[in-house]
Amino acid sequence: MTPNIKAKGYAGKDTSGNLSLWSFDRRPVGDDDILIDIKFCGICHSDIHQIKGHWGDQPYPQIPGHEIAGIVSAVGKNVTAFKVGDKAGIGCMVDSCMTCDSCKRGEEHHCDNHATLWTYGSPEKSSPTGITQGGYSDKIVVKSHFAIKIPDSIDLQHAAPLLCAGITTYSPLMRSQFKAGDKVGIAGIGGLGHIAIKLAASKGAEVYAFTTSESKRQDILGFGAREVIVVDSVDKLQPYAGKLDYMLSTIPYDFDISAYANVVKPYGHFTQVGVPIGGKLTINNFQFIYNRVNFNGSLIGGIPETQEVVNYCAQNNIAPQIKVINASEIHDAWEKVVNKEARYRYVIDAATI
Amino acid sequence: MTPNIKAKGYAGKDTSGNLSLWSFDRRPVGDDDILIDIKFCGICHSDIHQIKGHWGDQPYPQIPGHEIAGIVSAVGKNVTAFKVGDKAGIGCMVDSCMTCDSCKRGEEHHCDNHATLWTYGSPEKSSPTGITQGGYSDKIVVKSHFAIKIPDSIDLQHAAPLLCAGITTYSPLMRSQFKAGDKVGIAGIGGLGHIAIKLAASKGAEVYAFTTSESKRQDILGFGAREVIVVDSVDKLQPYAGKLDYMLSTIPYDFDISAYANVVKPYGHFTQVGVPIGGKLTINNFQFIYNRVNFNGSLIGGIPETQEVVNYCAQNNIAPQIKVINASEIHDAWEKVVNKEARYRYVIDAATI
Repeated sequence: MTPNIKAKGYAGKDTSGNLSLWSFDRRPVGDDDILIDIKFCGICHSDIHQIKGHWGDQPYPQIPGHEIAGIVSAVGKNVTAFKVGDKAGIGCMVDSCMTCDSCKRGEEHHCDNHATLWTYGSPEKSSPTGITQGGYSDKIVVKSHFAIKIPDSIDLQHAAPLLCAGITTYSPLMRSQFKAGDKVGIAGIGGLGHIAIKLAASKGAEVYAFTTSESKRQDILGFGAREVIVVDSVDKLQPYAGKLDYMLSTIPYDFDISAYANVVKPYGHFTQVGVPIGGKLTINNFQFIYNRVNFNGSLIGGIPETQEVVNYCAQNNIAPQIKVINASEIHDAWEKVVNKEARYRYVIDAATI
Repeated sequence: MTPNIKAKGYAGKDTSGNLSLWSFDRRPVGDDDILIDIKFCGICHSDIHQIKGHWGDQPYPQIPGHEIAGIVSAVGKNVTAFKVGDKAGIGCMVDSCMTCDSCKRGEEHHCDNHATLWTYGSPEKSSPTGITQGGYSDKIVVKSHFAIKIPDSIDLQHAAPLLCAGITTYSPLMRSQFKAGDKVGIAGIGGLGHIAIKLAASKGAEVYAFTTSESKRQDILGFGAREVIVVDSVDKLQPYAGKLDYMLSTIPYDFDISAYANVVKPYGHFTQVGVPIGGKLTINNFQFIYNRVNFNGSLIGGIPETQEVVNYCAQNNIAPQIKVINASEIHDAWEKVVNKEARYRYVIDAATI
């Protein structure tokens, strides 16, 4: 029997949010699998929410990380899409049933059989630790269908954040079907929001960026926003009431959704991708009966669309603004993410793990 | 100078919810006005919310009532649409700017100049009491544009509830553009919900009715629902997850919207017309990122569409299920509305005021 693969990574062992180095086993490379030597992994606010138990009780030890980019170092015998030496990435999921209508149309994250396996923390029989383990580590084994090809024209460290932050904003932006010249709002300008601005601007939108951080103004204009609105009070939203064609919010905590949704034109759409602690959001229906805005949520995107955003960014020279850190700086980076001090995505150099 | 018109009605004088008989003045009939001798007025949950101050501080004395049906007894010199003796109704609004884009396209309730005057409680210079006074009274003067013609083929007492409950459900149902054979959910089967079932069924929908009252089951089937789901726990919603083409909720309190919205197909719409105390509603974004449902609100409908629903009901023999009461029974009726005991709309006989 093929032996497990020795790996190491930074794992949470309780809800404290402290991660520590941990040696563990990955499954052997199966016939449909590839092994990736991880080079970089982005830090997502979701990592923090999940490891701290904000979204429900967690199994531990658990290694977070779902913005993974590296080099293929082994392939199973059935794998044709990748060869050793290829650049490859993994986003938020690593398996699904592959046979249901949703999976067949490329919405593996909405698998009708509820068989979507998330990149970390999902119970998984094939994993020696009993759960999937994420990308704050040195190696990962994954079914090749769930790996994304990373074009030569984009660096691994810049590709990594596209696999969650990129697809999570790209998918709803594309679904909104905004046209060139439309006014698109982006609320919450962090890891997701800053990529959303770049994507929307690149596709021809006139972008209105809503942030609570005055200190981000110049950066945001540099990302391509037409206007920056510093929302130090919800009154600042009032002049934009009914003005925007579409709004995407990445705000990861409970906020005054109704006040933000008011900036969208009647019968337009407002998408909330940030999921606060416990998922709870409060709305005021007095606002919604008047603003006539459609509120919806959006969860990452499927594998074909993830490949699409990576290709789009590679072709159009769109890269997230990142800071590469050593593994020893993860704790500090997490604190900065929570305190809105990230500028704009931390990416862990896996060579330091 | 033409004298004011003496009128009487049941007014709230504080937040207690106790109404008492009150004599007051209506303005004289202006050139564009008609005077209606009120014959019937429906009782809407909104009357209770507003008089009790659930939606903000109120001026008193204030006469509620915005489901008004009666007979025209005087017309101003510019009025051509009505003559003395005509059946006429008034719904939730009595004026707007009439010149903005929204007013011109028949959305007077969304007047761009914020000049919509609600039927009761809105500050109004022309009113001798300083505010608009509603339909729990014997007479009302209104700009003729805001009066609805009531066809001969529908009784005044059955027409009255169409002017709020009818239009409030008809408007979002029509906006949803459901097709014959589509599965349409109606949640909250009271004054609004039971008319919604009749309207949707009449337009060819397969109606799924969600109620918390087992005792309403037979009535609901009689209204035309295909199926009745008694939601004594949100688990009862689970078998319907992702099954309905559209859902309309009239539930007038804070409830588990996300659990209800889950019954709608991905990318479908869920409309909430009930406005709870303070307007506050709680959603769980974990549900919305997965269910992919669009949540929206809806506020009554414009004058042309209100005329449309009244005509449609008259032509198609659709009538609300009502109980005509004397003015002395208003207090008891309000308690029954709050306690979900109304079956299904109380209508005040204005001759008893």
